[in-house]
Amino acid sequence: MAVVGASADTSKWGGDVAARLLRTETVRPVYLVNRNGGEMHGRVAYRTLSDLPETPELVILAMPAAAFETTLDEALALGAKAFVALFAGLGETGQGGAARELRAAARLREAGALMIGPNCMGLADHTTGLQAVAYLDVPRGAIGFISQSGAMGEEFVARARAWGCGFSRYVTLGNQADVGIAEVLEGFVDHDATRVVALYAEGLREGRALAEAAARVVAAGRPVVLLAPGRSSAGARAARSHTGSLATSAAVLDAVCRATGVLRVDTPRELFEVTAGLLGAPRPRGRRVAVITEGGGHGGIAADALEAAGLRVPAFGAALAGRLREALPESAGANPLDFALGTTEPDAYARAVPVVAGADEFDAVFAVGQLGYWAARFPEFIELVAAEVKGAEAMAACAQATGKPLVVNTVYPDAAPAVRLRAAGVPVYREIASAVGALAALVRVAEARPSGVPRLPPPAAALAGPPDYWQAREVLAAAGLPMVEGRRVTGAEEALAAARELGYPVALKALGLLHKSDAGAVALGLGDAAALLAALADIGARLAPPACVVERMAALDQGIELIVGCRRDPLFGPVALVGYGGVYAELLRDTRTALAPLEAGEARTLLAELRAAPLLTGARGRSALDVAAAAAAVAALSRFAAAHPEVEEVEVNPLLVLPSGALALDARIVLRSADDDAARPNEEGA
Amino acid sequence: MAVVGASADTSKWGGDVAARLLRTETVRPVYLVNRNGGEMHGRVAYRTLSDLPETPELVILAMPAAAFETTLDEALALGAKAFVALFAGLGETGQGGAARELRAAARLREAGALMIGPNCMGLADHTTGLQAVAYLDVPRGAIGFISQSGAMGEEFVARARAWGCGFSRYVTLGNQADVGIAEVLEGFVDHDATRVVALYAEGLREGRALAEAAARVVAAGRPVVLLAPGRSSAGARAARSHTGSLATSAAVLDAVCRATGVLRVDTPRELFEVTAGLLGAPRPRGRRVAVITEGGGHGGIAADALEAAGLRVPAFGAALAGRLREALPESAGANPLDFALGTTEPDAYARAVPVVAGADEFDAVFAVGQLGYWAARFPEFIELVAAEVKGAEAMAACAQATGKPLVVNTVYPDAAPAVRLRAAGVPVYREIASAVGALAALVRVAEARPSGVPRLPPPAAALAGPPDYWQAREVLAAAGLPMVEGRRVTGAEEALAAARELGYPVALKALGLLHKSDAGAVALGLGDAAALLAALADIGARLAPPACVVERMAALDQGIELIVGCRRDPLFGPVALVGYGGVYAELLRDTRTALAPLEAGEARTLLAELRAAPLLTGARGRSALDVAAAAAAVAALSRFAAAHPEVEEVEVNPLLVLPSGALALDARIVLRSADDDAARPNEEGA
Repeated sequence: MAVVGASADTSKWGGDVAARLLRTETVRPVYLVNRNGGEMHGRVAYRTLSDLPETPELVILAMPAAAFETTLDEALALGAKAFVALFAGLGETGQGGAARELRAAARLREAGALMIGPNCMGLADHTTGLQAVAYLDVPRGAIGFISQSGAMGEEFVARARAWGCGFSRYVTLGNQADVGIAEVLEGFVDHDATRVVALYAEGLREGRALAEAAARVVAAGRPVVLLAPGRSSAGARAARSHTGSLATSAAVLDAVCRATGVLRVDTPRELFEVTAGLLGAPRPRGRRVAVITEGGGHGGIAADALEAAGLRVPAFGAALAGRLREALPESAGANPLDFALGTTEPDAYARAVPVVAGADEFDAVFAVGQLGYWAARFPEFIELVAAEVKGAEAMAACAQATGKPLVVNTVYPDAAPAVRLRAAGVPVYREIASAVGALAALVRVAEARPSGVPRLPPPAAALAGPPDYWQAREVLAAAGLPMVEGRRVTGAEEALAAARELGYPVALKALGLLHKSDAGAVALGLGDAAALLAALADIGARLAPPACVVERMAALDQGIELIVGCRRDPLFGPVALVGYGGVYAELLRDTRTALAPLEAGEARTLLAELRAAPLLTGARGRSALDVAAAAAAVAALSRFAAAHPEVEEVEVNPLLVLPSGALALDARIVLRSADDDAARPNEEGA
Repeated sequence: MAVVGASADTSKWGGDVAARLLRTETVRPVYLVNRNGGEMHGRVAYRTLSDLPETPELVILAMPAAAFETTLDEALALGAKAFVALFAGLGETGQGGAARELRAAARLREAGALMIGPNCMGLADHTTGLQAVAYLDVPRGAIGFISQSGAMGEEFVARARAWGCGFSRYVTLGNQADVGIAEVLEGFVDHDATRVVALYAEGLREGRALAEAAARVVAAGRPVVLLAPGRSSAGARAARSHTGSLATSAAVLDAVCRATGVLRVDTPRELFEVTAGLLGAPRPRGRRVAVITEGGGHGGIAADALEAAGLRVPAFGAALAGRLREALPESAGANPLDFALGTTEPDAYARAVPVVAGADEFDAVFAVGQLGYWAARFPEFIELVAAEVKGAEAMAACAQATGKPLVVNTVYPDAAPAVRLRAAGVPVYREIASAVGALAALVRVAEARPSGVPRLPPPAAALAGPPDYWQAREVLAAAGLPMVEGRRVTGAEEALAAARELGYPVALKALGLLHKSDAGAVALGLGDAAALLAALADIGARLAPPACVVERMAALDQGIELIVGCRRDPLFGPVALVGYGGVYAELLRDTRTALAPLEAGEARTLLAELRAAPLLTGARGRSALDVAAAAAAVAALSRFAAAHPEVEEVEVNPLLVLPSGALALDARIVLRSADDDAARPNEEGA
């Protein structure tokens, strides 16, 4: 390995990283390069890469950005194939720097070489004994870590140290001029030393290729936990200004997570705590949680938080309650189990855990309160402390034996019992909310059935131009959407004939306008010829449309209205959306998204996840609706969008779901403008 | 003061608390009492209270529960008026213990004396130099603290110590055999040393008296922060088993908080962190937050969290952006302000804060990231650390000068800059979510306009018996509810006459059944006489009702349906509920609650807070509805419920709100059963 820009001064990047690399020189030789030469860290620096006795396998670039291109050229000429660029001052500073990065990336690809960075903090890989992170020693362990931000990595490492866990491979990516997240993620698919992957991504640059890599890591049994800010407009602004990347909307990321099984979190704390929970604990077989506490009210708070997170805290069955009263005479036998011993019996937790963990009626055990009280507060009572520690070991052994997750919260997370539990793979958290979040994540991982990242079909013949409402109807009907019956008409005579044929009441819609309901171009519930003629005259006078559509009025009161659509994300391509519709749609935001195209089965799953889903399956005495027809329509729409890259957005609002069948009562297709095309190079995937 | 059950052994309660009291004996004499006498803590213990040279002002009861009554009798006979009972073994153990507590409470009241506990950890009051908490030294400060649980108090003190703040008065209440939360709360109304009150209540026992005390504390300028578990059924079970108290539902607590201005939190962590935030920071005048960060992605995460919490992170105006670029040349001038200096300029935060804090366009400043990096990571760089500390002092001074809250998040909360900031009243949090929660709490306190705890009117003449639907209509119409027009009919002839009078279409409802729609006792939209007769025949054959009601069909499609009701809470009495109605009501849970009775203005505020509120005021081109009429109906219903303590529940579902007026289309009144009465002694308030 070579460090270009090596320095004797360890307060400088090139000094710090050189010193750290030299500490692991037993694994492979390290050459220091400084254009001024000189002695540093007990050896003499080479003046150029060309002076080295061999071609380095890995070149750490710690010199100023000004020397980047000449250094890169020299290294590539020597045959170097791998670079880690720590220096800053290129892409993050604006257009000029970004252009230099693009040119360098092309040079690298041409030479068959790779570069991490620039503007990164380096990487570590304990499977190969590599420690090349500036200002940081990365502890060894089983977490795979990828971060665009070095600061976020440093924070993550601090949390890992406090917990007592470490990293198999740790990569900060910086500006991603060459190597991006997807490529590093891919490396974890068969990385046996890695049990969980934590990923911090400020602004994503890769689309389906990234999703596919994530899906493969997850499928290999390694959960992926993702922190990706930018949900809010201000958060998106921050991502853009900090990394120059586009922020991906929360709805699109939800679709990506659904397809891949990636777990999304919102804060650096959650990124670590969920990762740590997934590191050791087994996956629960269900959502039934037994809560045990030594009193003080933590049990009730935990139960509230668990149920708010979608877990269940059911009462103990009579037999289990009886066994618990034998093990802990002062317990009430309820769940949460409050053994009401205060802190006077240091092994009380250890007596309760095997009883509840052994019961078939629970899938997980949640111990909450003051475990480690004696060790933390009165270490002078040696027997009590010893009993606590022994109890902790028994708890860990029991969790291992039953294969059920045990998650612990205690106000004394640094005391010996907690340390012992964590070392044995039992996650222990200082905060109730953290412990609940970790158990909820275990359940999500256990229950996840990622749908996979769908392949995009070959493009169909593109639509000729922006379709009006009638053309949109035709196109979607051909794609398999069940459009409400209608006729294109010009003039009163054709309109009356169509209405007679369809049967009153009918709807009248003017063509040639995009937002029909806003412009007053739609008249509904026209009960007879007179009403139709009046509406036609009114619309004609106001809008003078080239033609109109007469449609049979649907039985709105016999079904419920959904919104169904597909939108093209700049990175991830077509994303399908289903939502509860009508005028309430915008207020209630009851929507779900998935990467398009999707199969009818997956569409059905989406529909079942809506809060309004009971309305589809027959809530409050209403009849069940034709969910299969709705799902088929969603799938057809998503296939259409996936096959038409020229379509920016397609929406059916409403799709009326009836007791038998579903009917599209409206349709809208927006083509992407020519300007958009340049910005979307990645969506087609790997 | 006297300690009964004093011990030489400090691992026992009577030993620990005696030793602690003796440390503050300069303030007042301490007498130790042990029935065996003996020497302890450097003095000889008295054998009985009667042996003391004077009557103690305060008696700490640390002997076993078995000796409670004899000790109490002796003390009361001597004229002692105040007791703190630490011992356990009474109310929390079951019926027998609870009965002994009730008898003791009666004895105390008779003697004009007061007792805290039993089963508590004691209390401290720094304004009077009292430190009588077992196993704990309580630091001095400006937090007033009340907790039913001693363990929760201990945890809170640990957090306060880590933060560097303390307590004016600290009270653990245990079983509340005599003194309850309301009485202690009341003591904070004019307690000048207290700036904020934190309250942990597992199961409430007092109703409106508690709410009134809380309202008075808040009105005196002291925010009250409340942690009260029991939202979930399991959480409620835990509260019941741990304290024997009833859990109060989240909806009722929401109503109490609305009336009083109390801030509710969900975890022990939030209880402390929100309290700490309220301790020093000024109240923001609005919701516009400037976020500043030194890079690394924390700014975007914070912006997402702030916007999710209802705060705003608007872009900087051009003038402000210009001033920022002068102060911090490398900043992008966006909000979040990322000055992109990494950690290289330790005073960068201090240069940014005055610029944004001085701008009228922001109400609060949120600094996020790695403040204190040098102090925490490289303390050997003394000049950089000094610059950080000086910067922190400048930030605090600026916050003080502008009167705008500055809230800080840093991964180095224990480093000198953070300590210095907290000492100056600037809240500093380790976690982004904590800092966001604290700022959101500051905004809530600043915006709170508590409605006050409404007085219950004198009871009206009680309803004679459970009213059927027709009687409920009559009663509510008399109370001012706008009932849809209808007629009580028996037989076809009366029904047809009523329908003719009202005009078709009509609705037909069978009397004598409570859940009409479930039992098929309602027929809607009967368009003519034939339809009415058919429905009458059908209902008659199936249900044989004593009579029916014929009602004019309302124009459902011209308005929106609300649920409006009042329910009697065992503790807090009548609580009004408004919600978005119809078949979606249960799915969407879009409801708000308030203590009844409420004025029309307050009802209007409730309605405006529904997520569906835009539907009332005219969303998406729909006409605005008569919100005033809806509010008047809610107020009338709440007045009715408040004046009828025999009414368990009254509900109008739906209340149809129309462009002009509102119409109650259904009504249901449930009387409380005789069994309920005994359990509800507290609701009438103080």
